[in-house]
Amino acid sequence: MTTLTRLPKRLMLGHPLQTSMMGDTLLPKKLALPVFCSDPLSSNAYATEEILLMLSLGGLALLSMTPWVAAAVVTLLVIVVLSYRQTCYAYPDGGGAYAVSRENLGRTAALVAASALMVDYVLTVAVSVAAGVANVVAAFPALAPHVVLMSAGLVVALAVVNLRGVKESGTVFAVPTYGFVLCVLAMTGFGIWRFLGGDAPVAESATIGIRAEQSVAGLLLVAVVLRAFASGCTALTGVEAVSNGVPNFKQPKSRNAAATLGIMGVLTIGMFVGITALALATHVHVAADAAQLVGAPAGYSQRTVIAQLAAAVFGNDSAGFYAVQAFTAAILVLAANTAFNGFPILASILGEDGFLPRQFARRGDRLVFSNGIVILALLAVALIWAFDASPTRLIQLYIIGVFVSFTLSQAGMVRHWRTLIRLTDRASEIGRMRRAQGINALGAATTALVLVIVLVTKFTHGAWLVVIAMPLVYALMTGIGRHYQAVRDELRPGPAGVLLPSRIHAVVLVSTVNTPALRAIAYARATRPTTLTAVTVRTNVHETDQLGRDWLDRDIPVPLTILDSSFRDVTRPVIEHIRHLRTQGPRDVVAVFVPEYVVGHWWEQLLHNQTALRLKARLIFLPGVMVTNVPYQLGSAAAAEHRHQEEGAATDAGPVTR
Amino acid sequence: MTTLTRLPKRLMLGHPLQTSMMGDTLLPKKLALPVFCSDPLSSNAYATEEILLMLSLGGLALLSMTPWVAAAVVTLLVIVVLSYRQTCYAYPDGGGAYAVSRENLGRTAALVAASALMVDYVLTVAVSVAAGVANVVAAFPALAPHVVLMSAGLVVALAVVNLRGVKESGTVFAVPTYGFVLCVLAMTGFGIWRFLGGDAPVAESATIGIRAEQSVAGLLLVAVVLRAFASGCTALTGVEAVSNGVPNFKQPKSRNAAATLGIMGVLTIGMFVGITALALATHVHVAADAAQLVGAPAGYSQRTVIAQLAAAVFGNDSAGFYAVQAFTAAILVLAANTAFNGFPILASILGEDGFLPRQFARRGDRLVFSNGIVILALLAVALIWAFDASPTRLIQLYIIGVFVSFTLSQAGMVRHWRTLIRLTDRASEIGRMRRAQGINALGAATTALVLVIVLVTKFTHGAWLVVIAMPLVYALMTGIGRHYQAVRDELRPGPAGVLLPSRIHAVVLVSTVNTPALRAIAYARATRPTTLTAVTVRTNVHETDQLGRDWLDRDIPVPLTILDSSFRDVTRPVIEHIRHLRTQGPRDVVAVFVPEYVVGHWWEQLLHNQTALRLKARLIFLPGVMVTNVPYQLGSAAAAEHRHQEEGAATDAGPVTR
Repeated sequence: MTTLTRLPKRLMLGHPLQTSMMGDTLLPKKLALPVFCSDPLSSNAYATEEILLMLSLGGLALLSMTPWVAAAVVTLLVIVVLSYRQTCYAYPDGGGAYAVSRENLGRTAALVAASALMVDYVLTVAVSVAAGVANVVAAFPALAPHVVLMSAGLVVALAVVNLRGVKESGTVFAVPTYGFVLCVLAMTGFGIWRFLGGDAPVAESATIGIRAEQSVAGLLLVAVVLRAFASGCTALTGVEAVSNGVPNFKQPKSRNAAATLGIMGVLTIGMFVGITALALATHVHVAADAAQLVGAPAGYSQRTVIAQLAAAVFGNDSAGFYAVQAFTAAILVLAANTAFNGFPILASILGEDGFLPRQFARRGDRLVFSNGIVILALLAVALIWAFDASPTRLIQLYIIGVFVSFTLSQAGMVRHWRTLIRLTDRASEIGRMRRAQGINALGAATTALVLVIVLVTKFTHGAWLVVIAMPLVYALMTGIGRHYQAVRDELRPGPAGVLLPSRIHAVVLVSTVNTPALRAIAYARATRPTTLTAVTVRTNVHETDQLGRDWLDRDIPVPLTILDSSFRDVTRPVIEHIRHLRTQGPRDVVAVFVPEYVVGHWWEQLLHNQTALRLKARLIFLPGVMVTNVPYQLGSAAAAEHRHQEEGAATDAGPVTR
Repeated sequence: MTTLTRLPKRLMLGHPLQTSMMGDTLLPKKLALPVFCSDPLSSNAYATEEILLMLSLGGLALLSMTPWVAAAVVTLLVIVVLSYRQTCYAYPDGGGAYAVSRENLGRTAALVAASALMVDYVLTVAVSVAAGVANVVAAFPALAPHVVLMSAGLVVALAVVNLRGVKESGTVFAVPTYGFVLCVLAMTGFGIWRFLGGDAPVAESATIGIRAEQSVAGLLLVAVVLRAFASGCTALTGVEAVSNGVPNFKQPKSRNAAATLGIMGVLTIGMFVGITALALATHVHVAADAAQLVGAPAGYSQRTVIAQLAAAVFGNDSAGFYAVQAFTAAILVLAANTAFNGFPILASILGEDGFLPRQFARRGDRLVFSNGIVILALLAVALIWAFDASPTRLIQLYIIGVFVSFTLSQAGMVRHWRTLIRLTDRASEIGRMRRAQGINALGAATTALVLVIVLVTKFTHGAWLVVIAMPLVYALMTGIGRHYQAVRDELRPGPAGVLLPSRIHAVVLVSTVNTPALRAIAYARATRPTTLTAVTVRTNVHETDQLGRDWLDRDIPVPLTILDSSFRDVTRPVIEHIRHLRTQGPRDVVAVFVPEYVVGHWWEQLLHNQTALRLKARLIFLPGVMVTNVPYQLGSAAAAEHRHQEEGAATDAGPVTR
């Protein structure tokens, strides 16, 4: 890397960390909560609103169903949290849906879960950031034309923070997460206090009526209520992040992770119930389509439910209102961070298992999986750009993947306990395992049911895109997996190993008598090959004549073969010549020595070695040929190597011989 | 090249030609004229108009100066043509301004001429194509919004035609060139016939008055007339193309080239005088600024002079009118072809002399200089895009470069004759040479004077851009020249040659025991190095343990060194290890063997060898290290090589041993 690109990288990402510093980046519970739970906690900012929007499709009367829908969501949340606590204990090395499915349900289920998770991680980033920006714009309408740019900028900022490393992420994200929780709880508490004091807060939309989009009765009523429930399930997104991240917790990892999951569950339920109750009590009326509104004042523009509540409880333009809005926007943007933690880990596991390119398995400078972070950011920006950063449109694609992976993960856990129960003979252990299995079975059944509901109610509203994307990701991963497997099979050596070459024919490519050419000849002679010739291609008569004269003048002890070229092309005659040498013996090997000058700058590189590059790209396709580059370092290359060495001064690599 | 990219290339460019077919692509005079003279011939389409536009800055009265200005342009043209005929005889291998200056005036003058020519070639393409498109738009105003796209598309089309080869260019370009000449001469003849018959044609703008931009008298009058003359000199652009292209003529090359130059001069003068006389006789009135027009009907839009003449002589919307317009547009676009012939030849000469990257010196598939053609097209498109394809704006940058190279070329010829005269003692020869020298001296003096006039009158109207661009190109070329020279000096071997390495330490990089690794070990053993070790980097404990077990199981007779990595980075520990090996002896050489699997598709390449690529990019910077790739071809690579072989089936390269 040149100085030009190295400096900004260091400024942005900090110094590289050693593997032994991994221990330092482990998270205590109070930091793990913001890092892994900002997604489920933040969903309170829109879960209630989504329920109200869907129910009001049937008019104001249907809002009476809200408590029942909310109760169903809370029940589901309790089941899923309890179910995932089992996973934290059972998989201390990280029990993501992929790992659990792979171990218990086989490769196909595991890759389905992986596809679902990857699609959903991208959507988590896109939805959270877009919703956060939408909340900022609600407070400052002048920013409205810039939502796409703002959202994309925030995704890039998140990527940079995460490329710096996971510990700093924890510190950076703690304040907004805890601030959001405190603000929502304070708003609920103050609201209740005002109700008790007889000064009941009233929402700005309380007097606005809502016309039903169509008369809702019978089966249609069920459909609308189910769709409201499906939308409310956004509150559950991200619950699996904790079980994925168990290895990042401080010891005892499993217990700390399970405890964090429990705390998250309690906080989420508290905020969700509080916001929903407050919304009903203050008569917040919102409609999916502004045309449904009845009796709204001229120029009325719907604000988010949380904004209406904050305005009603604390007063519009009060400090409390702005605090709620600011922290809501902040946690929504930061919720995307859950995906930035989960996606690269998943991609690296898939890379190690050979279902994604191996580069994903490589940790970057700051002990994080740089490739995954960069890809996630790119995909999220693309999605934001394609959907104009509209949360309403993006949210239709959301949570299908979540419930696919929930179901597979919990089903895998059921299988996991069954295997363990078979292997155990201690009755007390068996009883504990049966209880855990029961919880997971309930979780699997419930999330499977919800998955069906979500699919049916959201399919035509955009979810079909996800139903297409997931199989594509699945096909890509199985394709890569098949390719790596085929290569491994092809590369597996026979028991006899590899035959030693019988003779080596060395060929030195020369175009002029200069130091690199002489050096290549000297190196080639030092390898004592069976035969040794220098080869040149006559593309310019004068140059080749000069070469011949210099060759004789210097009395070089190697015969010079001159190849004619009909097409002024150097590559083809050399390839033909080498192929001809190879046919002299089946176990013969041709060693091609290519003199090369090494320059220090990329623009110098453009001026040199172009012919050698083209030639080498073809030579590697010839069987029984090895290509030896004999580099000769010019002054500018020595300076570049000096820079490299300075950069690597902190290295402490010691050889261990066995 | 894969099948995917090969097929379209073949369809567009035809089959590759052998060097021996070069003879077939030589041009007879009747084809050389359209190929090399479309530029000077086409300039008649705007030369007269430019003179009228400039003179009318001083109002209608100044138009009386037109014959004098035209006479000056014709005189200059005669001088320059005569002068360049000497060059054709003196330099049968191509007497471009660069070659003549290099031989007679030294490197600096030659590179100044080369910079001037290169800038002007780009401008020739941009101006000609833009003017051609402007003429099309004059006939079909609906196309006006697409001028940039149309111009860029035409440049690309020209590039494709030229990449196919020079002979086909001749055939393609003959029809429009001869068509334009015939149309203009027919228009002039028919116009004269109508005057003689008493039915005098009158231009549509004859009744429109022109207000002087400012009162013109004294020195200002001289300035306006000189500016008109400078603009009229566009008629001379491209005259040097013939002397550049002498080697492309059929035998006797010099005589045919000089004859072609003479024919071009006669045709140009005939058309220029005819158009100018007709414009004065039919009272064409055009103004640079539409605000100068007096008494124009509402909605009046000025048409090109040639369009007004064709309409006046043949009648508007007549077949004759459309023929003139069509051929004018066609030859203007094709005039750009002169540059497509000249630029790549010049770039290849500069590449051979080491002032441009050597890639330019390489002939492409169809015996033409592909790199130069592509670069020229890109630069011209950039210029067209930057100036909105406006000929009026582009023309201000034009002809400065032409007159710089005219002057240097003719001055070089004066020097050329002086040298020859000194070496000769035959009186008759000396007399002939003195005459030639006199003609060239007159040419040099005249063009130098015109250069000053052009610079002074056009500098503030955009020519300053060229005055900046030329030194930049000059600096680039001298910089490249210095770099190549420095590298040559650095690479020149001492008289003692190069020391033979005393010991070779072979290092085989392995990560797992597979066929490529075993093969690399076998090849390394076959070179019988002084020491031989296998080296791996421990980035994953499980994998390295597995490697160690496999190593012992197979009883591989080579010690395995395991390097620890603190940064999970493979490159740095290997570099440190090799640097350490090198320090054991100053004449020791390290041979690094890199097993590599070769796959057939670029996307497969993405999935493999990434670590090896990064490592090799660093290894070449270490002195005393040779890097040997031991490629192992997978099935898909064998298929790719099969395709390569089929592609090269027509090859007939035979080795000539000396």
